[in-house]
Amino acid sequence: MAKERVTVVDIARAAGVSKSTVSLVLQGSALVNEATRAKVNVAIRELGYVYNRSAANLRQAKSKIIGIVVNDLTNSFFAELAVGVDAVVQSAGFVQFLANTSEKIERQREVIASMREHGVSGLIISPARGTEAADLAPLVASGIPVVLVVRDIADAGVSSLISDNHAGAVAAVRHLVERGHRRIAFLGGFPDTAVFEARMRGYRDALREAGMSTPDELIIGSAPSRAGGVTAIEQAMMLKERPTAALCFNDAVAFGVCDGLRARRLEPGADFAVIGFDDVIEAKTAVPALTTVSVDPQGMGDRAAQLLLKQINAGRAEPEAIISPVRLVVRQSCGGLVERRVKEISS
Amino acid sequence: MAKERVTVVDIARAAGVSKSTVSLVLQGSALVNEATRAKVNVAIRELGYVYNRSAANLRQAKSKIIGIVVNDLTNSFFAELAVGVDAVVQSAGFVQFLANTSEKIERQREVIASMREHGVSGLIISPARGTEAADLAPLVASGIPVVLVVRDIADAGVSSLISDNHAGAVAAVRHLVERGHRRIAFLGGFPDTAVFEARMRGYRDALREAGMSTPDELIIGSAPSRAGGVTAIEQAMMLKERPTAALCFNDAVAFGVCDGLRARRLEPGADFAVIGFDDVIEAKTAVPALTTVSVDPQGMGDRAAQLLLKQINAGRAEPEAIISPVRLVVRQSCGGLVERRVKEISS
Repeated sequence: MAKERVTVVDIARAAGVSKSTVSLVLQGSALVNEATRAKVNVAIRELGYVYNRSAANLRQAKSKIIGIVVNDLTNSFFAELAVGVDAVVQSAGFVQFLANTSEKIERQREVIASMREHGVSGLIISPARGTEAADLAPLVASGIPVVLVVRDIADAGVSSLISDNHAGAVAAVRHLVERGHRRIAFLGGFPDTAVFEARMRGYRDALREAGMSTPDELIIGSAPSRAGGVTAIEQAMMLKERPTAALCFNDAVAFGVCDGLRARRLEPGADFAVIGFDDVIEAKTAVPALTTVSVDPQGMGDRAAQLLLKQINAGRAEPEAIISPVRLVVRQSCGGLVERRVKEISS
Repeated sequence: MAKERVTVVDIARAAGVSKSTVSLVLQGSALVNEATRAKVNVAIRELGYVYNRSAANLRQAKSKIIGIVVNDLTNSFFAELAVGVDAVVQSAGFVQFLANTSEKIERQREVIASMREHGVSGLIISPARGTEAADLAPLVASGIPVVLVVRDIADAGVSSLISDNHAGAVAAVRHLVERGHRRIAFLGGFPDTAVFEARMRGYRDALREAGMSTPDELIIGSAPSRAGGVTAIEQAMMLKERPTAALCFNDAVAFGVCDGLRARRLEPGADFAVIGFDDVIEAKTAVPALTTVSVDPQGMGDRAAQLLLKQINAGRAEPEAIISPVRLVVRQSCGGLVERRVKEISS
């Protein structure tokens, strides 16, 4: 049975309404009352009608897709972000299509072009490493609402929602300083990204505020992944003067740092203090539970989606730059005070 | 500058070719030689032309998108699967759009309908829990190539690619039996899924083969997540006769079991043997590195994409049911032999 044969006329007959009422329901019009809408939707489901949105797009120049383009789907931060976006766009009657660029600018160009061609109503983009304003210029010129998340791009001329990376790093380092740490490393992340730069600046500012120097040897970049964290802590532990604590670029790196410490028979939390950044779902259940700067990826996805929907509904809107607040969530990966621990060991 | 104003005529003029040559290039025709194609593509890029694929779809009834619908994007298995699919479809000139159903059948219906309306060339679906053949019937009737992955659905009438869950569970339990374990639990997973049923059957068959009974109390279901693993091991450790080892429903559950063991001051690998299922990227770098049944999600995505492309190129093809082989990857989470460990402890 080929379902395509079902027409608006069949639906109208089955629901006992006019053809134009069915059309209004299909277009999501507010002119149809709830009871009628429900009746039409039942008929649509029972007859297996498929709305030809390609044709409808051409007529209406409007579709019901939100696109989300992420730079690294294997990092659970972005999966959680997408889930946060999805919840909002779904209740607004949109379907979310996600595309992954794996940090490749060329692939990003292709997926953005494809989403434009398929008539997305708006795009949420976490740009691939190295993306410049010029890369987004054709998209911006087209007038499709765009929200950049996670990584902002200077002069892109679109709305952005990033987390307060500087304040988060400051709070994390202050926490380590208060616990008595004097050799604090910054581990992981690609140094050529804006996020790295902001977190690093917060790290340096907090150390300076505490009257401590920041030797370059304690800043060790790596891939922003679990494997990168293992590499970074290995390098840190080969220093003559080892650190006793680390602020990690993100939670994935922090988990890798914990793995690398255990591989050296050091217990994260007890023997070395670890702070992550992001607060992915796993941070809470990990052992030790990860002290981390909570960016709340799902919440960020939620806010990015709200911002995008606002722009879609307003037609062309002025770009907004939103800095999403963060907070330090203290769990177990920083253990007790260094002094106390030292005292216990020597008693 | 609104880029939409650029037309095929402008491209033709800039490239010094005819309008129909530009159209052929846009359609990916093999009739245009490489040099001409390059010239046209340069003009397309320079003028910022956007091909109106919605209109083209209506004319050609053919697009260049592959859809992938997954049931739980927060499980990294599915993110890795999608990355595997992406690599293949990308080199075949397609763009992949992903949608997440969060195990909701109603949402699955919506995203599949939306992908159909936007003219996907084919769909890869890991069905939401509880999906029945009837739920997919309209899609199947439409003739769009479909490949089910991970979870097969009886009588759906489409191709499927699932892993050899039974053989994997048998190999894992044999490994635990060889290491001297006599109280082996099966932890995590939703009992109402085909994947659970197959892995459970393998677990029971291997125990029976070893002349061991399978008390129901050792089979503890949970959400197939890290948090679910924590819950399942807590329940297992409250039994009067505790298990000494567990085959876990998947790696996420296994990591949660490791977390739960550590929370009780038990070291996974040394004090309790843990085997996972899937072999996600993290399994290799975790401490202890996870012994697991390798399903190779990226490789599975690769094979699913190949199978789908074959069907797309062949037009309508006969459904194939492929069972993807698995292998036990022995790492550190099962420690040494139980006898040896017991001997060491008592010596």
